[in-house]
Amino acid sequence: MDLRSVVAPESVVEPQGRYLADLMGRGVQGTAEAVVLPSSTEEVAALVRWCYENDVPLTARGGGTGLAGGAIPVGGGVVVGFERLNKVRQFDPLLWRMHVEAGVTTGDVQRLARESGLRFPPDPGAAELSQIGGNIACNAGGPHAFKYGVTGHWVTGIEAVIPPGEIVRVGGPVRKDVAGYDLKSLLIGSEGTLGLVTAAWLRLVPAPELELPVVGLYRDAEAGVSAIERVLGSGVVPAAIEYLDETTLRFSGDAYPFGIPEGAAFMIITEADGSASEARRVAAELQEALAEDAVAVHAPEDPADVAELWRWRAGAAFAILAQRGGAYSEDIAVPLDRLRDVARETLEIGARHDVVALSFGHAGDGNIHSTFLFSPEDLDEEQRADDACRELFELALSLGGTISGEHGIGWLKRGQLEHQLGAAGYDLHNRIKQTFDPKNLLNPGKKR
Amino acid sequence: MDLRSVVAPESVVEPQGRYLADLMGRGVQGTAEAVVLPSSTEEVAALVRWCYENDVPLTARGGGTGLAGGAIPVGGGVVVGFERLNKVRQFDPLLWRMHVEAGVTTGDVQRLARESGLRFPPDPGAAELSQIGGNIACNAGGPHAFKYGVTGHWVTGIEAVIPPGEIVRVGGPVRKDVAGYDLKSLLIGSEGTLGLVTAAWLRLVPAPELELPVVGLYRDAEAGVSAIERVLGSGVVPAAIEYLDETTLRFSGDAYPFGIPEGAAFMIITEADGSASEARRVAAELQEALAEDAVAVHAPEDPADVAELWRWRAGAAFAILAQRGGAYSEDIAVPLDRLRDVARETLEIGARHDVVALSFGHAGDGNIHSTFLFSPEDLDEEQRADDACRELFELALSLGGTISGEHGIGWLKRGQLEHQLGAAGYDLHNRIKQTFDPKNLLNPGKKR
Repeated sequence: MDLRSVVAPESVVEPQGRYLADLMGRGVQGTAEAVVLPSSTEEVAALVRWCYENDVPLTARGGGTGLAGGAIPVGGGVVVGFERLNKVRQFDPLLWRMHVEAGVTTGDVQRLARESGLRFPPDPGAAELSQIGGNIACNAGGPHAFKYGVTGHWVTGIEAVIPPGEIVRVGGPVRKDVAGYDLKSLLIGSEGTLGLVTAAWLRLVPAPELELPVVGLYRDAEAGVSAIERVLGSGVVPAAIEYLDETTLRFSGDAYPFGIPEGAAFMIITEADGSASEARRVAAELQEALAEDAVAVHAPEDPADVAELWRWRAGAAFAILAQRGGAYSEDIAVPLDRLRDVARETLEIGARHDVVALSFGHAGDGNIHSTFLFSPEDLDEEQRADDACRELFELALSLGGTISGEHGIGWLKRGQLEHQLGAAGYDLHNRIKQTFDPKNLLNPGKKR
Repeated sequence: MDLRSVVAPESVVEPQGRYLADLMGRGVQGTAEAVVLPSSTEEVAALVRWCYENDVPLTARGGGTGLAGGAIPVGGGVVVGFERLNKVRQFDPLLWRMHVEAGVTTGDVQRLARESGLRFPPDPGAAELSQIGGNIACNAGGPHAFKYGVTGHWVTGIEAVIPPGEIVRVGGPVRKDVAGYDLKSLLIGSEGTLGLVTAAWLRLVPAPELELPVVGLYRDAEAGVSAIERVLGSGVVPAAIEYLDETTLRFSGDAYPFGIPEGAAFMIITEADGSASEARRVAAELQEALAEDAVAVHAPEDPADVAELWRWRAGAAFAILAQRGGAYSEDIAVPLDRLRDVARETLEIGARHDVVALSFGHAGDGNIHSTFLFSPEDLDEEQRADDACRELFELALSLGGTISGEHGIGWLKRGQLEHQLGAAGYDLHNRIKQTFDPKNLLNPGKKR
């Protein structure tokens, strides 16, 4: 039976390059027999049913901004894009909730909430391109996850299609539900390997009146990490605790809006938020905690300066990439007390493999983007950068951490999971997969 | 092989009444061949292995304060109590985290956190008796879940024993982890039917400096629910939004510390918290939102008065029970806009079944303790109260809600789950159970 007989003919488009890759890079592009852009949940269900009947692999993709290759169709078959399944089904600002289809962009959700004085707190990069369905599939994080939690914390219900083509709804517009097993959380972060998220009920919160970043600059990582510890001990809850190491600052510092002072080799970005009075009180506490041993403290208050700071922070990854044209930037997470070990050992790993190494990331969550640079023309250097990543994963596990704090396993980290979960845990993981997708047709080769 | 050959002889005790029931009431008491009180995770693993080899059912229990019969050994076999597995393995106040064994009481965790200026926010009832393992098994809530979320939100890692006797660790002292499927969330709220939680890593947060409740009293439910809507629209986030209806106030009002004024037939309890200045600001906003149409507004500031208010609120359930000696108090949750329907229809359901009906609960989460009274001597009345509960569950589902917001399915709500989850969802639920516990020996008869 032809695919066009189960979905609307206009939903089927020719495979083009942009449907076959994501932001993982590494030159990996998948293949697909067809790309389907359904415009209803029923159409997704019909498609999954067809794939299951015909043993055709199926890879779902959101905005394609993933960094681990989760959306690359490495096993061929059908790619499903969600850009036409993009309705806001319901928005109740007075009840702090929104019901959206999977293809609505993160940016649109954030904007819609903001226009009603509310906030959808998850803030992964590339919000204008990334879609809620993809954010849920990866359980995306971001700088403000320190105070507000990751995407899953803001999802109260999911509509999904599971093999062999059933529509299930778990949770809904309710704020508490302990009736069944937590299938909602199981689908969140499953990277399209258990089911296809078609819509979600999101929880919102009143927007903070004021956001006041406080930046501390230090002569070295040791002084910087000590400052983070003082922040944690200060009794306030910052909205974010980010850091950038010396090499990151060297590559991105020129565009830093307030000027990197002489002798600064480690930056911490914190933020106070809430009502105007509360944000000012917390900002003052953060300033006090950060000031000790600091080369400089910057505390922009003008909203344009604040926006500029975060734009610069979001652009750091691009500044890094531009250095040599290639960068493997990972997302390990470790217990907070191991932050200084990661910052130091990232450099040591780089030195051992003769590649430029640096680290930056979400310090408060112990979620670090350790990065190794290479020139795409230098295959040997690229291989050394890749070897450095493998050693980094070992480091994360030896420190009691995880190989992925926010990007997911995808295709990039395949083969690493068993080492982290242990034999019994990995077996359980695989049996869950088998329970949902016995034919292994959903995003084959990923999350394993 | 004898049980005493796989666990320490002193870990095996005779079955006594207190190990065979929980707070569900309804005269249900289980049976057990043995009660085992292990003092190590390895002993739990050995016990599960023995049960699996010998096809012996196994029911885990925490403090026995559950309200849905989840801890009652209805299938006989072995009961496992966790009171000897009660070590605090690690406490890092400066890193806002604690590693505890399952048998540590909720009260001890809260106290230990408080002594270091931190807070473990989940606040289910009976904190002095209930244990963290049981809280996790039920994903327990409480009044302050409105701002702080339920137990699961504060658990970053779990150590558990799964059949046929494997120790697994999912997550740990890390704040972000998207490597494997979210097996942690799957175990949380699974009511001992998928595995036995033996330890957990908990996340803590700096304690609020000040907690200021603001109570509003109204002439009827309509005016009260409108006040709740004004609170939600006020732009502040209260720590709690509770309500008690007219009959609840009639039964419990005498002990209310600030006196129920004439004409008050609906109470809302909100709370502002945070730094002293922030708590005062939020309390003022709450007062303004609650004052319109109010019969009275009470805003105690003295810490002793505040504690007394919450003690009184926690005691309401006992005042209600004392009226006729029996009370079926459920825990449905509905979308917030359905609160007034639940308050009204609870009374109508009671009238239809000729039993005294009332409701109170966690209004902000839409999580309502609709309650039907009976005399334990009047079997017909008890049956009518039971019938009223069945109708209440139908109501919750027809309003897009859940039959359990915080107590769990346990034994009490058996047979209700399929209706809520739908055929495909229920099938998935059962296949998850089968994946973990193919012999159906863990807490048989529950969560289904």
